Amino acid sequence: MTPAPLFLEDLAIGQVFRAGPLTVAAEEIIAFARQYDNQPFHTDPVAAAAHPVFQGLAASGWHTAALMMSMVTQALGHLGWGVIGGGGELSWARPVRPGDALRLEIEVKEVAPSRSRPDRGSVLVENRLINQHGEVVTRFTPRLVVPTRPREEPA
Amino acid sequence: MTPAPLFLEDLAIGQVFRAGPLTVAAEEIIAFARQYDNQPFHTDPVAAAAHPVFQGLAASGWHTAALMMSMVTQALGHLGWGVIGGGGELSWARPVRPGDALRLEIEVKEVAPSRSRPDRGSVLVENRLINQHGEVVTRFTPRLVVPTRPREEPA
Repeated sequence: MTPAPLFLEDLAIGQVFRAGPLTVAAEEIIAFARQYDNQPFHTDPVAAAAHPVFQGLAASGWHTAALMMSMVTQALGHLGWGVIGGGGELSWARPVRPGDALRLEIEVKEVAPSRSRPDRGSVLVENRLINQHGEVVTRFTPRLVVPTRPREEPA
Repeated sequence: MTPAPLFLEDLAIGQVFRAGPLTVAAEEIIAFARQYDNQPFHTDPVAAAAHPVFQGLAASGWHTAALMMSMVTQALGHLGWGVIGGGGELSWARPVRPGDALRLEIEVKEVAPSRSRPDRGSVLVENRLINQHGEVVTRFTPRLVVPTRPREEPA
């Protein structure tokens, strides 16, 4: 069953939406990196083990972010216009390793109707991608564009 | 020919590194979105045309960011430890459309040796992804970890 669409009026500070877990395999980490972030610590387990910072194969941060987005669409895809944001602060707090099981929490931090456009508002959320040890690996705080509930047309 | 590795001492405020252009096809936009950002304005040209915000097929912002990273590795992959950042402010200023030709500029904004670890420093850069009309479509300002030049061992 498709959930009913969510509008600005349905959102409140402190609400949390969840998705996952999702497990990342070494083969996926390597395939994504070969295409978009072709560096030895993302593509070669032997070179990665010798890297002074990573000390082992780690997913590209952009791969981690894309996996996070796949869970964001599961958790919040029923927003009235879909999940639309103009950007935000992105933080890769810890490496993501092969076999990690990642889950997502999206916490509503601010809800603000637009002053100039009554059909919409902005919602600041914090996305937290959390591994099987309970550690936040990636954090992203976008401001989403969310429509207000359409008014009933007079009969 | 592989370029010589770049160390902290080789970087200065105002330097600009470049890569691209790279052209994005509708098929790629749709394939990436189906996997990571499965929303109609990224996967269905007809639904996208009717969307109140996008008004036409647009690449997932995470796809745009991944394409940007593929150019970052071309422009700066010869940094001493590779391109490593802990995150930064990410801004999707304009949609990326099928057929857009994107180029990258990376401008060095700050260079700071580490106070506690003499083997490294941090470099703030601004990545600008620019379309064929000269408009910035995506901006990302990460702080990179860059090694200092290794000292010559005494003979």
